[in-house]
Amino acid sequence: MRKIKLTISYVGKNYNGWQKQKNGMGIQTILEDAIKKATGEDVELFGAGRTDAGVHALGQVAHFETNSKIDAQKFYYAINQFLPDDIKVLSSCEVGKDFHSRFSAKKKTYVYKFYASEVILPLCEFDAVKVNSKFSFNSAKKAIKYFKGTHNFKAFCSSGTNVKTTTRTIYDIKLKQDEKGIYNLFISGNGFLYNMVRIIAGTIVEVGLGIKEAKSIKDIFASEKRDNAGRTMPANGLTLFKIEYE
Amino acid sequence: MRKIKLTISYVGKNYNGWQKQKNGMGIQTILEDAIKKATGEDVELFGAGRTDAGVHALGQVAHFETNSKIDAQKFYYAINQFLPDDIKVLSSCEVGKDFHSRFSAKKKTYVYKFYASEVILPLCEFDAVKVNSKFSFNSAKKAIKYFKGTHNFKAFCSSGTNVKTTTRTIYDIKLKQDEKGIYNLFISGNGFLYNMVRIIAGTIVEVGLGIKEAKSIKDIFASEKRDNAGRTMPANGLTLFKIEYE
Repeated sequence: MRKIKLTISYVGKNYNGWQKQKNGMGIQTILEDAIKKATGEDVELFGAGRTDAGVHALGQVAHFETNSKIDAQKFYYAINQFLPDDIKVLSSCEVGKDFHSRFSAKKKTYVYKFYASEVILPLCEFDAVKVNSKFSFNSAKKAIKYFKGTHNFKAFCSSGTNVKTTTRTIYDIKLKQDEKGIYNLFISGNGFLYNMVRIIAGTIVEVGLGIKEAKSIKDIFASEKRDNAGRTMPANGLTLFKIEYE
Repeated sequence: MRKIKLTISYVGKNYNGWQKQKNGMGIQTILEDAIKKATGEDVELFGAGRTDAGVHALGQVAHFETNSKIDAQKFYYAINQFLPDDIKVLSSCEVGKDFHSRFSAKKKTYVYKFYASEVILPLCEFDAVKVNSKFSFNSAKKAIKYFKGTHNFKAFCSSGTNVKTTTRTIYDIKLKQDEKGIYNLFISGNGFLYNMVRIIAGTIVEVGLGIKEAKSIKDIFASEKRDNAGRTMPANGLTLFKIEYE
């Protein structure tokens, strides 16, 4: 048995998220079906990040075990033949027996994209979310520093998952505006709680809109109450950007 | 009669370009129909850049004359109600009688987006074009400087339009790679010949692929022969970025 690591990109719009779904299409299942067509094997694919319905990926990582003789470096090509246009494997390689796409990951980076406008931008709306045109970049930037480092993110996650601890470490967080005027919020960390990136993005947006003050973020952390944080931003603005390993 | 200036964004995919079409949908016609629904008037809309089928716009500009009493600043809102999701007016204002969207324009900027990959990137393919993974950014950058300034661009345009002169001035041209790894070729100039941006992009890509040498671009200009320049890159990588006036 060899272990194969895949790097995968997808547009989330047409799927019910990464995980296998009882009703509806999970990206994991579509990939497992494509691997079966390529190898003849029933495999179980383990993803690094269980992206929600509508969330995109530029660098999702997943692994599976196989007896197939397909060259590890060419696996992506064999699988892509059986995938729809909005899901593609970008690369493949063999990894050691100890590798696990999720548990071996050292750093995960997400990007949340939004723009301030009176009108929905047709060229941007599939992976960026419109916010009120009153949004102030300078105000929002003041909120960024409060999230960096190791914190208890209990106020910044939705209930619905069992986790041992709500403490996570944000290695890096930055808000940049690109040439189109789109804001890109990049967040890197050792792991993320349920809806954590979308709630952090919503809190930063609310600071930019003057609904919240940047310095109140300290109190929101301390309160450990979800209701005190900002809105959960829509799924389609979120992209799993990359997963890094040692 | 007042003259109204519109700034417009659209996704080119579903349309046969800006201009009125005998067969098929031109974006100009769709906007004129929407203005008629908003004002009750038959107007003629003059666009700054006649984008080809499949080409996108983030900042197309157009003007029309009207007797309508709609507030100039709110015209965009009235028109948007009658537009499909992939065409939107971003803003509107009143301009002087001498204003012409095309002839008053001082500077036009296009962006051509592409990426070097073995696999089509699902998240990028609607407005960026895949090129061979052998593409070298460093090689391609050497080609950029040859295009800046005033030149006879006869070798860098397709036949099919009558123009008095094929001399144009490129004010600025730069090739940047964004966080996703996508190359953005920004070109600003006083005007562009038919397919000129797509042929310049194709020539730069061919230098990046080692098919052409950067220094050969001088000879291509001198030859005035279209066949000596690079390929015409596909329409869907091109976006009319902005039009500037005094």
